[in-house]
Amino acid sequence: MSHIAVGHATGRSRVLIEDVTPQVDQGRFAPKRVVGDTVNVQSRIFADGHDVVTGRLLFRHHTESTWRTSDLHSLTNDKWQASFVVDRLGCHFFTVEAWIDRFATWQRDFQKRVKAGQDVAIDLLVGAQIIREHLPQVPELARSALELFASSLEGGVERSSQIEAALSPVLAEQMHQYTDRRHVTRFEQELPVEVDRPLARFSTWYEFFPRSSSSVPGQHGTLADCERKLPYVADMGFDVLYFPPIHPIGRSYRKGRNNAVEAQPGDVGSPWAIGATEGGHKAIHPDLGTIEDFRRLMTKAKSFGIDLALDIAFQCAPDHPYVACHPDWFRRRPDGSIQYAENPPKKYQDIYPFDFESDDWQNLWEELKSVLLFWGGEGVRVFRVDNPHTKSLTFWEWAIAEVKSVYPETIFLAEAFTRPAVMHRLAKLGFTQSYTYFTWRNTKQELTEYFTELARPPVSDFMRPNLWPNTPDILNEFLQFGGRAAFMMRYVLAATLGASCGIYGPAFELCVATPREPGSEEYLDSEKYQIHTWDWQSPGSLRHFIARVNAIRRENAALQDNVTLRFHPVDNDQLIGFSKWTADGTDGVVVVVNLDPHHTQSGFIELPLVEFGIDSTHSFQAHDLLGAGRYLWTGPRNFVELNPQVSPAHIFRMRKQVRTESQFEYFL
Amino acid sequence: MSHIAVGHATGRSRVLIEDVTPQVDQGRFAPKRVVGDTVNVQSRIFADGHDVVTGRLLFRHHTESTWRTSDLHSLTNDKWQASFVVDRLGCHFFTVEAWIDRFATWQRDFQKRVKAGQDVAIDLLVGAQIIREHLPQVPELARSALELFASSLEGGVERSSQIEAALSPVLAEQMHQYTDRRHVTRFEQELPVEVDRPLARFSTWYEFFPRSSSSVPGQHGTLADCERKLPYVADMGFDVLYFPPIHPIGRSYRKGRNNAVEAQPGDVGSPWAIGATEGGHKAIHPDLGTIEDFRRLMTKAKSFGIDLALDIAFQCAPDHPYVACHPDWFRRRPDGSIQYAENPPKKYQDIYPFDFESDDWQNLWEELKSVLLFWGGEGVRVFRVDNPHTKSLTFWEWAIAEVKSVYPETIFLAEAFTRPAVMHRLAKLGFTQSYTYFTWRNTKQELTEYFTELARPPVSDFMRPNLWPNTPDILNEFLQFGGRAAFMMRYVLAATLGASCGIYGPAFELCVATPREPGSEEYLDSEKYQIHTWDWQSPGSLRHFIARVNAIRRENAALQDNVTLRFHPVDNDQLIGFSKWTADGTDGVVVVVNLDPHHTQSGFIELPLVEFGIDSTHSFQAHDLLGAGRYLWTGPRNFVELNPQVSPAHIFRMRKQVRTESQFEYFL
Repeated sequence: MSHIAVGHATGRSRVLIEDVTPQVDQGRFAPKRVVGDTVNVQSRIFADGHDVVTGRLLFRHHTESTWRTSDLHSLTNDKWQASFVVDRLGCHFFTVEAWIDRFATWQRDFQKRVKAGQDVAIDLLVGAQIIREHLPQVPELARSALELFASSLEGGVERSSQIEAALSPVLAEQMHQYTDRRHVTRFEQELPVEVDRPLARFSTWYEFFPRSSSSVPGQHGTLADCERKLPYVADMGFDVLYFPPIHPIGRSYRKGRNNAVEAQPGDVGSPWAIGATEGGHKAIHPDLGTIEDFRRLMTKAKSFGIDLALDIAFQCAPDHPYVACHPDWFRRRPDGSIQYAENPPKKYQDIYPFDFESDDWQNLWEELKSVLLFWGGEGVRVFRVDNPHTKSLTFWEWAIAEVKSVYPETIFLAEAFTRPAVMHRLAKLGFTQSYTYFTWRNTKQELTEYFTELARPPVSDFMRPNLWPNTPDILNEFLQFGGRAAFMMRYVLAATLGASCGIYGPAFELCVATPREPGSEEYLDSEKYQIHTWDWQSPGSLRHFIARVNAIRRENAALQDNVTLRFHPVDNDQLIGFSKWTADGTDGVVVVVNLDPHHTQSGFIELPLVEFGIDSTHSFQAHDLLGAGRYLWTGPRNFVELNPQVSPAHIFRMRKQVRTESQFEYFL
Repeated sequence: MSHIAVGHATGRSRVLIEDVTPQVDQGRFAPKRVVGDTVNVQSRIFADGHDVVTGRLLFRHHTESTWRTSDLHSLTNDKWQASFVVDRLGCHFFTVEAWIDRFATWQRDFQKRVKAGQDVAIDLLVGAQIIREHLPQVPELARSALELFASSLEGGVERSSQIEAALSPVLAEQMHQYTDRRHVTRFEQELPVEVDRPLARFSTWYEFFPRSSSSVPGQHGTLADCERKLPYVADMGFDVLYFPPIHPIGRSYRKGRNNAVEAQPGDVGSPWAIGATEGGHKAIHPDLGTIEDFRRLMTKAKSFGIDLALDIAFQCAPDHPYVACHPDWFRRRPDGSIQYAENPPKKYQDIYPFDFESDDWQNLWEELKSVLLFWGGEGVRVFRVDNPHTKSLTFWEWAIAEVKSVYPETIFLAEAFTRPAVMHRLAKLGFTQSYTYFTWRNTKQELTEYFTELARPPVSDFMRPNLWPNTPDILNEFLQFGGRAAFMMRYVLAATLGASCGIYGPAFELCVATPREPGSEEYLDSEKYQIHTWDWQSPGSLRHFIARVNAIRRENAALQDNVTLRFHPVDNDQLIGFSKWTADGTDGVVVVVNLDPHHTQSGFIELPLVEFGIDSTHSFQAHDLLGAGRYLWTGPRNFVELNPQVSPAHIFRMRKQVRTESQFEYFL
């Protein structure tokens, strides 16, 4: 009568399990965590009737074949909870199971009968019977103790001793340990959790063009020059250094300065037009140096605690070796030419996109994977992927999994500025971090709505935002017109709203603000098409300010995650206020930013002190880590004023424990 | 290289489909609809890049092997939509599929190139090539027309004619009709929709004890007496008549009047203590009559448009034949006796619950199913199931599916007053309707919160609430103290908040309000334990009022569903206001109820006239269908006043089209 099964091993498994979290799209994708995290698992578990239900969490690393377990605890309304610590990189699986606990049910009811003064003679026998039926499943060592309990319940001693035995916690503990799981219900799915290294969640990125690293004006920078910039990057507190593509650059249809259709002699072309006679995605531009130079740079960066991130732009210049060797990987036009990239009527004749519908798609996928593995073999563990949304999304899911199966610590940042559904899918299918719309979110309402969405499930479970105030492609209007204060404010926002953030420098710290033309977001004389010689040590540079903000990020664990982000009312729309706390609620940071780069703004911020665990009847200290001021506040409403020409933001550390005059020092 | 598949038929299917609705727990359960409904399907569909995506909805009745289809239309943000009408009882399935539309992409881009004045010589050839590659898939009849288009694009005519041909809607239409689905992506699930008859959604229930149907005081009523009550029930406008169990009642441990532990001679016992020497769940209590009487009653009820609903209480009195024949179906105590029902320390010795963990569970399930099929064979198509949450939930899922496979028009009402998770699960697993917490929701805030939850997805997709102001088990305190106005008000609320509602009568319409003891919700001299002789024609009866409310329900389609329910602000917490509209938005009802049964209450109700489609600058008529008053209102805020001693509620029909003096009649 197998048709009775209805998806269950047996009709006698009366417990039902649903709504197991965390999950992304019902287990189709994996929520993201980092090594050391505690994964809080919840589930709705119930059965017909009133019997006691018992359950446990099962969890394992994907390489383990046996489950580790942990007891589930009951919350309210049939919700149950347990947690496990993810102590290794890579995918973990978990599920839950539960069953009717017949002995616990009996013991609960027995207690009620005793309390009501009922005759429990037969009930004692029922208890003994449950124990005895159980014995065959109990290890020999524990059996005699349980037998003794059963005998006591069956008689031969005073009734009061019987009752005492029946309600003994030792008996309860033993029966729980060897509980009867014959009719267990296990949740039908093993849910995945993807575990990355901590840098996946908390990272601070710096991007520069390696060819602009020379101190000799007009000279093509080299990887050796880049090595010499490492102290500069490290001093500012960045831990990821990201380079635009370092490969040979195509010559045919090469773009000139400011994206001119025709290059002039000496024009270096766009690094994203990858491939020339010197090689393609696995080669290094000869003017930058050799693979040995690259290896030396990698080693040096590591010594500074810096991960070198490469740019993965899966597209080809017309003279990329692939074009000749694998013409099948590109779409051909009726005149025999290869289809270049377009956004009609715009044409990008220096770029050939791959045809992911090619008949030879499997070899194409394998080759692209081999590019990632090649650089993985060179020790690269961070990739910034250029426009992943214009390549097959299914390819990425496969390729990222393949690379992480070899190098599980690899981090992939998706540079996709596109519709929410596509950005979400890229994050779900495996990208470790994602560029966001932050670059275009400037007002209090925009920031509040967008970051509330990003900091809460479902989005926070699968997408790790990486906030960039600028990129080589985007000089936002706000930066064009806001002056130095705008750069400071946008960096504070990026660095405190986002556990991961990044800037494109030195353009950023030097406050470069001139667009190619009015209304454009493109930089004038963009480094995308020419070499720059920067005044890295300019006295007007924001590098010390950025170093201070990054030091605050490192010293305050509250800023290293996003899930506790909460906005707080300020009675001035030009002032935005928010807080972040560590998971244990001990370390908190309150940030107030003046969104107006031109005027001093002031107002009252209202903080939920009770939820912060701060006594609202006593004064407490708000210590501004950025301006170094210390403010004595009382109650939930307090005054803030920010002059953007001095500092457009406060980053307050909140102290929970108020000290009193009986202590030696005030608020130190 | 099959490991590349990543859950897709081919890596070349670039379209991704997610978030297909309606669904309940990702297709594990079926959303509920009734015959004739339009099912609105939405999905998120997208691909990498910028190609045009095309998709369609596929749907079929579960007995059909081929899909019917309908084109998907694009909404915003990658959302797509299509709908289908469910024209038959039983489960329907639907899914969606989508693919890159290469020709539509080409045509869109071609148009942009033409607009930009570009040379399109090669682009015309690309278009022709796409058409020609396509021809083998096109039926011969349509092929020549397409060939002609291809030739035009290839040349031999003026460029302007070529362009005209390329952009021809006929060509677009043909290429759409025979679109290239080689790399189609189909959503991985076929989602179910359960389709019931309209009574499943819109039903008005009346419950009475058949043994109380005699007009001779103290005499046991019969099914023949019940027949004579049918006009009474029909006149009030009820379409379901529900009887507590009609089976033989156990004699051992029979309960006396007012639930006395020992019955006195002549006490009739509780109908829920099912089974005696005369038979069990398939037998009729001899004092009620014979199976022939039952059949006659069924026929007569049908002639009144009334469905007879039987009570399914799967439990046994100690003298039920099952106890002797199938002792394995019950739990045995160590003293050899059978375990009676308990809620320790309370004992219900007149009831033996089935043991759903019995070794013989499969035969138990089959026998219980046979009870349902037995009454199904007698024409019963509505079952009210007693305490389904104390029996295996998996059993119900199986049993309901089994019964509906034979009698698909069957309706099951779950009488489960328990935790939300369990009530929701019963609805999801197959119960057609559900009792609700309405009985205990009396204040404006309670009603607003609860019914907003019930009227919105996810709950509205799987749970059909059936609202009862009273039951034989529940005489709510509000009715005990609110007098006649409380009964009127609670019926209006049940009948307008719920597309399905019911009362236990004649206790309800006779305003019986005395509990067994203060603080109890049990009726004094409850019919559960004794026969009543009612004064059905009492002049104080609310039967005419109820008939009026039920007539309004029948005449106003807006009241026959819950999904458009919306609450509206009234500046008096004792007045609650809400509206319902038909799906097409033409027929609307606004209800205002005075929740205070003791005092006249007045206030201003605020209606969203723009959303109602009512011109807020002209006056409009609010026609009270209950009190028959006609109010001329202007603008969104209007005054209401209700004296509970006259009528505690308005049920306004809203007229959208304002008539003017140029018409013959005002607001008729």
